Amino acid sequence: MNVTVWNEYGDAQKRREVADVYPRGLHETIADFLNRDPDIQAKTAVLANPEQGLSEAVLDHTDVLVWWGHVYHHEVSDETVQRVVDRVQRGMGMIFLHSAHKSKPFLRLLGASGRLSWREANEKTRIWTAASGHPITRGIPEQFVIDHEEMYSEPFGIPEPLQTVFISWFQGGNVFRSGVTFKKEYGKVFYFQPGHETNPTYHHEIVQKVIVNAVKWAEPVIKVGPLDCPNAAQPLEKL
Amino acid sequence: MNVTVWNEYGDAQKRREVADVYPRGLHETIADFLNRDPDIQAKTAVLANPEQGLSEAVLDHTDVLVWWGHVYHHEVSDETVQRVVDRVQRGMGMIFLHSAHKSKPFLRLLGASGRLSWREANEKTRIWTAASGHPITRGIPEQFVIDHEEMYSEPFGIPEPLQTVFISWFQGGNVFRSGVTFKKEYGKVFYFQPGHETNPTYHHEIVQKVIVNAVKWAEPVIKVGPLDCPNAAQPLEKL
Amino acid sequence: MNVTVWNEYGDAQKRREVADVYPRGLHETIADFLNRDPDIQAKTAVLANPEQGLSEAVLDHTDVLVWWGHVYHHEVSDETVQRVVDRVQRGMGMIFLHSAHKSKPFLRLLGASGRLSWREANEKTRIWTAASGHPITRGIPEQFVIDHEEMYSEPFGIPEPLQTVFISWFQGGNVFRSGVTFKKEYGKVFYFQPGHETNPTYHHEIVQKVIVNAVKWAEPVIKVGPLDCPNAAQPLEKL
Amino acid sequence: MNVTVWNEYGDAQKRREVADVYPRGLHETIADFLNRDPDIQAKTAVLANPEQGLSEAVLDHTDVLVWWGHVYHHEVSDETVQRVVDRVQRGMGMIFLHSAHKSKPFLRLLGASGRLSWREANEKTRIWTAASGHPITRGIPEQFVIDHEEMYSEPFGIPEPLQTVFISWFQGGNVFRSGVTFKKEYGKVFYFQPGHETNPTYHHEIVQKVIVNAVKWAEPVIKVGPLDCPNAAQPLEKL
Repeated sequence: MNVTVWNEYGDAQKRREVADVYPRGLHETIADFLNRDPDIQAKTAVLANPEQGLSEAVLDHTDVLVWWGHVYHHEVSDETVQRVVDRVQRGMGMIFLHSAHKSKPFLRLLGASGRLSWREANEKTRIWTAASGHPITRGIPEQFVIDHEEMYSEPFGIPEPLQTVFISWFQGGNVFRSGVTFKKEYGKVFYFQPGHETNPTYHHEIVQKVIVNAVKWAEPVIKVGPLDCPNAAQPLEKL
Repeated sequence: MNVTVWNEYGDAQKRREVADVYPRGLHETIADFLNRDPDIQAKTAVLANPEQGLSEAVLDHTDVLVWWGHVYHHEVSDETVQRVVDRVQRGMGMIFLHSAHKSKPFLRLLGASGRLSWREANEKTRIWTAASGHPITRGIPEQFVIDHEEMYSEPFGIPEPLQTVFISWFQGGNVFRSGVTFKKEYGKVFYFQPGHETNPTYHHEIVQKVIVNAVKWAEPVIKVGPLDCPNAAQPLEKL
Repeated sequence: MNVTVWNEYGDAQKRREVADVYPRGLHETIADFLNRDPDIQAKTAVLANPEQGLSEAVLDHTDVLVWWGHVYHHEVSDETVQRVVDRVQRGMGMIFLHSAHKSKPFLRLLGASGRLSWREANEKTRIWTAASGHPITRGIPEQFVIDHEEMYSEPFGIPEPLQTVFISWFQGGNVFRSGVTFKKEYGKVFYFQPGHETNPTYHHEIVQKVIVNAVKWAEPVIKVGPLDCPNAAQPLEKL
Repeated sequence: MNVTVWNEYGDAQKRREVADVYPRGLHETIADFLNRDPDIQAKTAVLANPEQGLSEAVLDHTDVLVWWGHVYHHEVSDETVQRVVDRVQRGMGMIFLHSAHKSKPFLRLLGASGRLSWREANEKTRIWTAASGHPITRGIPEQFVIDHEEMYSEPFGIPEPLQTVFISWFQGGNVFRSGVTFKKEYGKVFYFQPGHETNPTYHHEIVQKVIVNAVKWAEPVIKVGPLDCPNAAQPLEKL
């Protein structure tokens, strides 16, 4: 299966403190560990690419799109957003990571505000499995720890998920539905909270396994053409 | 409670064959039967009004917005859509009628394509209750008939509803999830299929009762201010 | 509306350390605060009553049943369980508190194992609202604290809830979906985690408000007779 | 994967008019077409077998259980039901066919009444896909016809499904959610309406494909041991 890992990758992600953790950008780190799985072919794309890295040609060869964005959400054009939303409805899987909760495709696909509260205090988080037996939890322990992460807190501005897969405990007293699934017609959507850019979260073995699982779970059953509203003028039964 | 009934009400709805059924526009018919309920104060708004009838001032005094639109969806501005979506997320109830399945606020709130197939053959439809005991079904029989309606058919391009309240049988061999609920943060959303502009559907007593029920069900528990992402810099517990 | 608060109230709940907190049993404490609401008429019933306190006559006059049980689950007869399950399906609201996650009616209505892990360490818990704008959260702050409670932890053995209303943070590192709703045909079901028998939880003002809200939310839209499978021998349309 | 196809297979299913269609019982017909799939190993079991065909040993070697029952539901013992329910919660997939909507394991797993109305008139039914892109719909057309089937009608006494996969149109004017999914902890559950014993439904190629798809979809991600409530006496974090 073909995966595209998209990252805004603007100057904010080329700063020393991010580059120390993800020298070639976190999209390359994510693509690297995905490519270690024999069933996955992962490429990367960034905002500065032609057509913002998400041309029809790129999307034609994408089964699952992984999205990381943060401070450049507003630079993603409406055309790009429309292409992505359309593809998800037609079968492409979509994994939103961390601050992508405020990305345009997330807001458009979920009809959500994406609101939450947050804290950058490098605090400890424990990620608990709520949906036992979900494919995304395959091989994942009942709970695991990330020593230092940004805190995201409820209330989280999303519609009721199809399934709440993970719930996070934060040292500072907060909780968050950190792994949630949605279905948008032919396409599956997963949001996963961990991944602040100055923390080595995407080097964490269990985090990597969750994302690999999610990508596989989101593989399209089928990808279809444009979804329109045909006139079924001929009734199936006598009127 | 204050209800605003919005209709695009362009030339297409002032044609003879529509005006014969809804002389002052179907928004006025809907507002009229809503106003017969002592708990409801319904006003109307149309696309040609200033700010497309949905200024902040109007929305400030709207607890539930009822939407009918068909051939002028594209004329609704992005600003209007954003105001409506924002209000729903903050608590305003929203009832989408019939061809509003392709209106911009519907597509934006549900992240849906709204696709379906249709047939204008004035065929018979039977509307069945699937969600027994739902407030929207209060006083509604197990099934009821509309003699002549436009057919809308599955597959319907929506996310899995919170509850599937009604399912319609069509004479020509089709079925449709004709009443479905969603929750978008603080706001409740209901889509209801009947209501082709040349059929007297909104004069049908049971249809009226469904819409009255839906409006009451969608009344906000609370309406809140803008939903943002505050920095919860101060932890609740010692780090 | 008529509420029945049921408690097993065996010797285990008459021990000194429970009686110090709930002198007449926690059912009486719960009924007392419910009765302070002008719309609610609450009575109590216990396992030692005739027909285990839940005769057809009692259920005839019960709109919402509140259930607390712990160490005597197995003494509740299959007949009692069947009566309760049947009534919920026919419209009676049902509120399960705390250790009722292993009560027979809970397991029967949800088809669940009710599994979880627990700890009696009188630790601090913070209860967060996940479902903003839900009627059960009316007037409830975004999060509130119970200083000393029994810990219940994910994974929680329940089907995916209709809505996840509350999620709890525990001092010892655990999280729990502490407020979840379900719909069982005509009846609404709410589970709420707080309420260990030696903690003064049901004297906590916000906990009381949640339970009052839940009881009102669970009020039947309609109560119906037995749900059977009639032969609709006469077709509605010509075959 | 190992599949067990269970059928009550009492005298009622050995009558001439059933045996004409399913000479060795419909369980053998179902097992036969399942066994044509190279990934599936299907065996059969019937009520008259030792331990009603569902001993712990049989269940140990069952990944997905397919259930057909009708007039002998009451003969299935509580012990058998408990074994089945327990296995589903621990990961075994479960496919309920046709009149299994009143079987004890169905009622126990869903906490449902299973009510519906029905008609034996050999009428035409059209089965529509509602959940586009669901694995169970792989290769299934948007709608297909069964010429002669028993009619089952809404309202259907089930909790809100995880996903409504199929909705049926009946010639006589009824509709029915004929394919619905549920998740019971580790196990997946699918109900599929077609399959009256005197109609050749299980010889219908598309019906067979749906059941093959459903069995594959229901394959356990993992099967686990008994689900209990351990004392997590040792906190993960300092109290």
